Amino acid sequence: MSDKRRYLILAPGVFAQDAKTAHGVIAYAHDETAAVVDPSCAGSSVRDVVPYLNCRAPIVSSVAEGLAFQPTSLLIGTAPIGGKLPAHWRSEVLAAIRAGMEIVSGLHEMIGDDPQFATAARESNARIWDVRKPPEVPIFSGYVYDVQQPVVLAVGNDCAVGKMTVMLELARAAAQEGCRAEFVPTGQTGIMIAGWGIAVDRVISDFITGASEQIVLQAAARHPDYILVEGQGCINHPAYAPVTLGLMFGAAPDALLLVVDPKRASIGEYDTPTLSYVELIQIHEAICAKVKPATVVGIALNTHTLNEQDAREAIARAGNETGLPADDVVRFGSRALWNAIVPSLRKRSPLRTVAAV
Amino acid sequence: MSDKRRYLILAPGVFAQDAKTAHGVIAYAHDETAAVVDPSCAGSSVRDVVPYLNCRAPIVSSVAEGLAFQPTSLLIGTAPIGGKLPAHWRSEVLAAIRAGMEIVSGLHEMIGDDPQFATAARESNARIWDVRKPPEVPIFSGYVYDVQQPVVLAVGNDCAVGKMTVMLELARAAAQEGCRAEFVPTGQTGIMIAGWGIAVDRVISDFITGASEQIVLQAAARHPDYILVEGQGCINHPAYAPVTLGLMFGAAPDALLLVVDPKRASIGEYDTPTLSYVELIQIHEAICAKVKPATVVGIALNTHTLNEQDAREAIARAGNETGLPADDVVRFGSRALWNAIVPSLRKRSPLRTVAAV
Repeated sequence: MSDKRRYLILAPGVFAQDAKTAHGVIAYAHDETAAVVDPSCAGSSVRDVVPYLNCRAPIVSSVAEGLAFQPTSLLIGTAPIGGKLPAHWRSEVLAAIRAGMEIVSGLHEMIGDDPQFATAARESNARIWDVRKPPEVPIFSGYVYDVQQPVVLAVGNDCAVGKMTVMLELARAAAQEGCRAEFVPTGQTGIMIAGWGIAVDRVISDFITGASEQIVLQAAARHPDYILVEGQGCINHPAYAPVTLGLMFGAAPDALLLVVDPKRASIGEYDTPTLSYVELIQIHEAICAKVKPATVVGIALNTHTLNEQDAREAIARAGNETGLPADDVVRFGSRALWNAIVPSLRKRSPLRTVAAV
Repeated sequence: MSDKRRYLILAPGVFAQDAKTAHGVIAYAHDETAAVVDPSCAGSSVRDVVPYLNCRAPIVSSVAEGLAFQPTSLLIGTAPIGGKLPAHWRSEVLAAIRAGMEIVSGLHEMIGDDPQFATAARESNARIWDVRKPPEVPIFSGYVYDVQQPVVLAVGNDCAVGKMTVMLELARAAAQEGCRAEFVPTGQTGIMIAGWGIAVDRVISDFITGASEQIVLQAAARHPDYILVEGQGCINHPAYAPVTLGLMFGAAPDALLLVVDPKRASIGEYDTPTLSYVELIQIHEAICAKVKPATVVGIALNTHTLNEQDAREAIARAGNETGLPADDVVRFGSRALWNAIVPSLRKRSPLRTVAAV
């Protein structure tokens, strides 16, 4: 077996619209996509259904049918609210386990803790990788304040606006510019792509800052030039803002990058309105200022719902309203935004009650 | 057996200074304290060592010695950072289990999940109540926005400043004034005192707002006049601020009560400076304003380190700096502050992207 997985991606009925995990892995992972299971679009290929992924893998109607494409691993291709496996997916997961395939899951519900799955996996010798299963981590220590590299955290105006994608694209841009920016995965898709990290939303609340700190320390130990931390949620999210704040304090960023879908009017499934650029900058900087100051250094827009003219206007407006560099790194490339923010990436010190020794 | 527990409280070497859980249970729980285990002050009584508790229970040097006082339950009397059982306490816990006593623990580390303890408990038929063990809770729904009673949340300038105590004292004051204020426990000591609640710091980060919402809904179902939610951590705590924010968004308070130790210069074990009254009011109100507005309605000072003259000056200063009612409810009684804040306890609506139907 090569060191690359060949994924069969399970996303029945949801691949086209609601399979963020699947799309992220297809777009950015080192691993290969053998096929996708979604009866609602079986017979087409991935790029027929999601053109930007530019992937020729076929879409099939069942795990049984997908076995023909020699997959090594079944990827649960979505992260539903609450993180539970939809009941009607169970038989497909079981079919993959019985075929001896590895199961890769980012659900809150641990596949390996399910008695039926665990028993079947023992019988077929199938490996189960519950990506979201958190390791034991210490309470936040403050050692992260001694990290030498500038740390950038993505924050946004909602969930699922592209915070992970933007940081992966900026890491690529950095490499093209001859420096090394280490991507720090904080969610299940990022972990599947990079092969390490902690799903901080799955960590016990008292330990989320400690978990965020540990992964930044791990990244720093690889001696990159910059550290780019995947963001989660958003600071005015009625349900997930505590996760966002856990990263803001635990990763102790020096700089924040705003990732914004300018057409998003409300947060996730809630009625809560999204914030303006100016409000986003004010609230994030005000909160960080109480512990370790961080400034917003740029804006990455997600303009996928706009035509090109409207996209360029939205980007210009973001820049004008804030005086910050702004771009859509997926649509127009990431090097311009990267080069524009680099001069702002300087280390900052936390507040201290006593003068530093 | 009566419906009251008789607690043997385990706090070796830490009872006088570092046993917040023990002190809270002795002061406020319906249950009785049979004795305290602390070899460093064995031979004295609780009130010799912690006068304000005004409790005659003896302090003994071991669990074996404490059995003479007919305890029904061993209470782990402290909550160390990280929530682990100190290694040298194990033999005492085991002695209690072998004596058939119930074990009541608020540690992160679950006593019932420890193989040695679990086996011993099965053999002696001892019950284990891991108070911090979280129930399964749904993701935040927003149903809490429909609660009819004013919800008050305690927030503070640090951990361990008295947020639980203040809310318990205000609930007593409300009863004296002829109305009913339901105390909502959010931490292990509050749960031990009230007999219900969720230790929100032990909940998975994605679910902390949902857990906070559920306990407010439970309180509302009892049809009190007011709902008083125990606070946790503080909003600029480098480690625990996400827990504080989880309560701010999940409990969806209409009003915030600041609980402040005016002598506290830095947060917990960290160098992070505490905030001024004005800073505390601004940052809490600014964050709540993005989801559901809440205003700070009063200040409860913890002046236990000040003499009476200094305490009265500190209270006057807090009032003058903020224009809000201020008092020390433990030192000077809680009815004055309660009566002063009641006129400010009005329901407030969350922000919405669309007009309410």
